Amino acid sequence: MARSRSGRRWTGRTAGLLAFGLLIGASAAEGGIRTEYFFLTIIAILVGAKVLGEFAERMGQPAVLGELVAGVLIGPSVLALLPTVGPVSEIIHLLAEVGVAVLLFEIGLETDLKEMFRVGGSATVVALVGVVAPFLLGFAFWMIVQPSMGASTPGISDTIVAVFVGATLTATSVGITARVLTDLNRIHTPEARVVIGAAVVDDVLGLVILAIVSGLAAGAALTLFGIALKFVVAAGFLVAAVIVGNVIAPRIFGLIDTMQVRGVLLVSAFCFALLFAALAGLAGSAMIIGSFAAGIVLSSTNQFDTITERIRPVSDVFTPIFFVAVGAGVNVNLFLPWTSTFDLNVLLIGGALLAIAIVGKVVSGYAVGWGRTRLDHLAIGVGMIPRGEVGLIFAHLGLTNGILSPPLYSAILVMVMFTTFLAPPLLKPIFARMGDPPDGTPRVPGTTHGVSQTTVPG
Amino acid sequence: MARSRSGRRWTGRTAGLLAFGLLIGASAAEGGIRTEYFFLTIIAILVGAKVLGEFAERMGQPAVLGELVAGVLIGPSVLALLPTVGPVSEIIHLLAEVGVAVLLFEIGLETDLKEMFRVGGSATVVALVGVVAPFLLGFAFWMIVQPSMGASTPGISDTIVAVFVGATLTATSVGITARVLTDLNRIHTPEARVVIGAAVVDDVLGLVILAIVSGLAAGAALTLFGIALKFVVAAGFLVAAVIVGNVIAPRIFGLIDTMQVRGVLLVSAFCFALLFAALAGLAGSAMIIGSFAAGIVLSSTNQFDTITERIRPVSDVFTPIFFVAVGAGVNVNLFLPWTSTFDLNVLLIGGALLAIAIVGKVVSGYAVGWGRTRLDHLAIGVGMIPRGEVGLIFAHLGLTNGILSPPLYSAILVMVMFTTFLAPPLLKPIFARMGDPPDGTPRVPGTTHGVSQTTVPG
Repeated sequence: MARSRSGRRWTGRTAGLLAFGLLIGASAAEGGIRTEYFFLTIIAILVGAKVLGEFAERMGQPAVLGELVAGVLIGPSVLALLPTVGPVSEIIHLLAEVGVAVLLFEIGLETDLKEMFRVGGSATVVALVGVVAPFLLGFAFWMIVQPSMGASTPGISDTIVAVFVGATLTATSVGITARVLTDLNRIHTPEARVVIGAAVVDDVLGLVILAIVSGLAAGAALTLFGIALKFVVAAGFLVAAVIVGNVIAPRIFGLIDTMQVRGVLLVSAFCFALLFAALAGLAGSAMIIGSFAAGIVLSSTNQFDTITERIRPVSDVFTPIFFVAVGAGVNVNLFLPWTSTFDLNVLLIGGALLAIAIVGKVVSGYAVGWGRTRLDHLAIGVGMIPRGEVGLIFAHLGLTNGILSPPLYSAILVMVMFTTFLAPPLLKPIFARMGDPPDGTPRVPGTTHGVSQTTVPG
Repeated sequence: MARSRSGRRWTGRTAGLLAFGLLIGASAAEGGIRTEYFFLTIIAILVGAKVLGEFAERMGQPAVLGELVAGVLIGPSVLALLPTVGPVSEIIHLLAEVGVAVLLFEIGLETDLKEMFRVGGSATVVALVGVVAPFLLGFAFWMIVQPSMGASTPGISDTIVAVFVGATLTATSVGITARVLTDLNRIHTPEARVVIGAAVVDDVLGLVILAIVSGLAAGAALTLFGIALKFVVAAGFLVAAVIVGNVIAPRIFGLIDTMQVRGVLLVSAFCFALLFAALAGLAGSAMIIGSFAAGIVLSSTNQFDTITERIRPVSDVFTPIFFVAVGAGVNVNLFLPWTSTFDLNVLLIGGALLAIAIVGKVVSGYAVGWGRTRLDHLAIGVGMIPRGEVGLIFAHLGLTNGILSPPLYSAILVMVMFTTFLAPPLLKPIFARMGDPPDGTPRVPGTTHGVSQTTVPG
């Protein structure tokens, strides 16, 4: 019943918007998932993502922002081209899962374990302060203020909601940061090295936090022992996967390299990422930790270059589906004063979270010192501001599990979107006042999705 | 009810086969489509396809054969790793549709309209005779012999079944043929040019026939007027799509080329293929005619090289899903004398169809003459023998619409598989007796899926 109602609304709205609407409407009456609708839905997602991604880039913003906005537009509160329930919705959801798995696999591929260890001190301090400060600020803010827009499911405690709010504030988007620094031609400055190193550590911490909040979302009680256990399972899976993978993967991929059938290396890498994701999920950890680990493991194989090059087109197709699906979760009506669902709280809370997000990360830039100018500290702190994939995943997880109410989810999305919006215009003048870039490295275009085209330098 | 039963059977059988079976079984009890199962299903499909594809290539056979066999093994009659009903089955079906759309898009990209016109005379004669002869032989065979394994749905006339049987015998696989000639280092011989040209014309004829049989499958009555109309719609859509596309596509893709966002060219080409497929389907033609037309259109754009290169990894991931799904349709028990479902008719009819398939195409080699030796004629005729994608699509269409009974479907698969098996060992000695290859072009490995790595020369 719910399924057919949603199907009708979806195709009904589509009919008004697309030239061949009449044909769609006519066929929709026959029932079932017509392959044509599925194709048209995929087209709507991908074309929307690319057009608005391009638009975002021309505005000097990362493309991922455009993809999120595309999701908002295609989503149920504006054009309603995406079904929210029913079989097509399920399929889009699963393809989005493939998309985020491939994205984290790519980020993993760019994460060099040795580099992560080498950046050492400064980066770790920045990362830890940059995770702990916004988490505590966010947690405290929620516990003290306790706004009315808490959990949507009765029986979920404010503590759990507060943990989720804090968690969404923690993870710097390594991809977006690297991209911004590349765009500003500052990727090889000492400050950039610290920022990138810290963002990588931060990403791993974020994944561990993700495993914790995943457990909370699944209804586990919030005890210190439970958190410690989650930490051990998440970090343990990551460590075990990386260690076992580092032993096995070179042999397996050495063998695969002797195979000649078309696409065998790419398909094997793709399956490797999906397998690690499935194993992580089955082991009680988060699936993307698995695909991230798969990427780290394959980054040290001889086949790294070919895999990195060939996974890109696959990621190009699948990844936007995830960000569009994330954006589709935003209910625009919450922002519009003339609608009945307008909620001033969304803007107020979103603004407060944004302030916390900025302060929490800028502080981390000052946590590491010795011989740096004020501008250097500021550059590091501001460089850590952009939140991205991981924060969005936290928020989405909280929403689908009823821990975050739709207005709170929207407020968090406002925070994530604005941190990403704000970083480039804030960083530009800081670096400009620091003088010319140290090298003549040309601007590298076309490096979005939160993944830079080149390997992240240490 | 049917859904949960299938889900249980699927995961039940999986549990016995995979190391983490217990975990799967435990989670399956929770219900719903767990993302992990979906990932594991995709892994089973892709790993099976690649391992058996490699095995096939090492046996000197095209990889597509291995993918079909992988489907047979993963399918319900052997390992039962693929669900046959339920949501996962629906998703695999839709992804297989994407796979075949991308495959035909690739074949279209390699089809040069000008070359098709240039080969002219000989190729057209070979193509026409090679389509008409096996069609008439197959049609007559069915009308005269009228075996007991006809339609599975009551009310479907023998004439329609006979048309389907004839249709499955018509289309030479341009990809497999090109691949075999490349493997034998004979792609640049005059005979190869005729064969490739004829196979291309043949492929287009096959697509028109597909539109006709699609109409039949949808329950349209078989009248001469109806066939003519289908021909006009199918050929008309193809011609209109190519003409309109040739005007519009260079401008659109010229514009897209000025966009800088990551993956925009690939994603646009992918969407272009899906859009043409959806339009073809909505216009009452076959969807793959649309994606084939999209490929032809883009083959004349300035962005051709980049598109061809970047669509490959996407095809590597999606296309095997189609062939595995096709192979999964084979009920192995029909071939095994010790099972209760063994049907000697499958082997007898399969053998008869195979004889017709070979005779019908070899005859076409002799239809074009003047100054050729007997070996040249034979090389052309034998070169036309391999059937592939299009024949399989016909058969699958007939099966899903109840026109072909499962045993007849299996008999046709036997025919298609054996024509593909037989061509390489038959062609090898013929070319060997014709003397050394005319040039030193090296063997090109890794060119499977019925799509050669290089553009097919005219």
